[in-house]
Amino acid sequence: MASGSGDRKYDPNKFRKYTFDTEPIPRLHCYHPDTDRLIANERPVVITDTHLADTALKWDLEYLAKHLGSGQHTVYRSKTHKFKYYDEKKIKNLPSFTPPTQVLRMTFAEFLDKLRNPGKDRYYLQQALNDTVGKQLVLDYLGFNWDYVNEQQRKFKWGPLTSNLLLVGMPGNVTPAHYDEQQNFFAQLRGYKRVLLFPPEQFGCLYSHPIHSPHDRQSQVDFDAPDLARFPRFREVRGHKVVLGPGDVLYIPMYWWHHVESLVDSEVTVSVNFWYKGGTVDKIEYPLSIQQKVAIMRNIEKMLLEALHDPDQMAPLLCDIVKGRYDL
Amino acid sequence: MASGSGDRKYDPNKFRKYTFDTEPIPRLHCYHPDTDRLIANERPVVITDTHLADTALKWDLEYLAKHLGSGQHTVYRSKTHKFKYYDEKKIKNLPSFTPPTQVLRMTFAEFLDKLRNPGKDRYYLQQALNDTVGKQLVLDYLGFNWDYVNEQQRKFKWGPLTSNLLLVGMPGNVTPAHYDEQQNFFAQLRGYKRVLLFPPEQFGCLYSHPIHSPHDRQSQVDFDAPDLARFPRFREVRGHKVVLGPGDVLYIPMYWWHHVESLVDSEVTVSVNFWYKGGTVDKIEYPLSIQQKVAIMRNIEKMLLEALHDPDQMAPLLCDIVKGRYDL
Ligand SMILES: [Zn+2]
Ligand SMILES: [Zn+2]
Repeated sequence: MASGSGDRKYDPNKFRKYTFDTEPIPRLHCYHPDTDRLIANERPVVITDTHLADTALKWDLEYLAKHLGSGQHTVYRSKTHKFKYYDEKKIKNLPSFTPPTQVLRMTFAEFLDKLRNPGKDRYYLQQALNDTVGKQLVLDYLGFNWDYVNEQQRKFKWGPLTSNLLLVGMPGNVTPAHYDEQQNFFAQLRGYKRVLLFPPEQFGCLYSHPIHSPHDRQSQVDFDAPDLARFPRFREVRGHKVVLGPGDVLYIPMYWWHHVESLVDSEVTVSVNFWYKGGTVDKIEYPLSIQQKVAIMRNIEKMLLEALHDPDQMAPLLCDIVKGRYDL
Repeated sequence: MASGSGDRKYDPNKFRKYTFDTEPIPRLHCYHPDTDRLIANERPVVITDTHLADTALKWDLEYLAKHLGSGQHTVYRSKTHKFKYYDEKKIKNLPSFTPPTQVLRMTFAEFLDKLRNPGKDRYYLQQALNDTVGKQLVLDYLGFNWDYVNEQQRKFKWGPLTSNLLLVGMPGNVTPAHYDEQQNFFAQLRGYKRVLLFPPEQFGCLYSHPIHSPHDRQSQVDFDAPDLARFPRFREVRGHKVVLGPGDVLYIPMYWWHHVESLVDSEVTVSVNFWYKGGTVDKIEYPLSIQQKVAIMRNIEKMLLEALHDPDQMAPLLCDIVKGRYDL
């Protein structure tokens, strides 16, 4: 058995330390009845024994070097341990924006060279699994337990699979807290990653960047040095935590905030995301779910940006709506 | 000449005193070229010599008693000098709302009795001019200078006339600051009214009630005792002022805030509003006008209320959008 809760080798002292409390995420066998219940309620759960990506458990650096293909892959470079995502399409009209990481295109061989000869910079390969990968990797991909995920997709009425992202990260790399607008089965293949999750109810404590920002959906709060004067409700934040090892599959519900770190001094980590569109709601019921409220907040920001044609006018207008009128 | 700037009899010491500075509104002949320029730019102006409602200058209490008709008219009763408008349709789901005035239905004879035997309560007749009025009043109405207002409507591309409201108020009555979503020619017939106007740019200083409130479009600020802790930007408010006498017509542009007071110890005041729908915009240009921004703010509030189905959820959601994200 390649996965399961036994045989997990990591040093719990190699986690980064943060200011907030966390509670563990349940870790359950895929046939356990609570697993379905949690997913149906859009609560995170580590699912064991799915055999979802058993054919990829052998995807170490040597194997990927041989089979990932000789094309150019997307690799991010950072001067810190943090790889905060930004949307390049949203940079265009923001000359003042300084990208915190650089997007590079390089072969896997070049990436491997960066990993083996570490300098001051850190690297993180984030490449969609598409038809540029080599034939053996395609076979491994086709050997994924599609029966399992297709069944989950049907059962929970998710939309189509949109992409699989392959992540190859240096030990200590951190993907700071953000939320995605898709359902995610996060399959850990090599090494250990700690994931911190926060429910969408904590939207007000995590201060996502404005919608027009390249950092849309990312928290503005630096977990290493939270600015509590600017972000006072970060004090209220409470997380859920889990350490994922090879064979583990974490269900990251849509709109749940997540922070992902490859363990410090661990080996290189390899993971694959399975992203699905959310389901459609047949009949709207009241009160709305928190997920629906986050969607509404995003729509308000989008419509306002669309109407004003100028991000700089959003703050004064929103303040005029709220101040002295909808303050708590 | 029934109107014009001469022959204006009122005691300037009979105005109520407020905390903010005001500057006078221009007072111009209807043929003065600046009059058109001001209206085209949606700036307030007192227009003289329009002869708009000359046939109504004789509408004193005796005349109205005889000709307004024997039907029931809408009369507001207030325990204070303030008659703050509220929308009865929006009270239904707000059991905690206490109306600041009572809406009564009474004949003009009954209203006249209230005026002639004053008690502690104040009264304000606000009756749409419709087909319930007597024949002589209809003739007076048909004798208004419709050529003049139709020409203005055409010139400034306004929509249709929606209503004429007849206002008969006791001396000292105040209609607190609010804005309307229509263009208004405010014709003064009897007695003197002071009008204070504030441009739509001061939306953020005047703190309109939330959209779901029966007091939607009314300022939350009590001009007699402004709560500067709750409404700090009221300190920034700067008004425009004018005293209207018989024959004067004030153009109150759409979205301009206005506060109207019948002079203390003056005679009973009689006025008629001419409300027109705003024009439609052919081509949206950027940056948007402040009027367009106020319309957008109203739409955001409306859509949010529509989406949430619960006014109580609006404040927390709007605060989550703004705080630490779009604060200034
Ligand atoms: Zn993510
Ligand atoms: Zn008004």
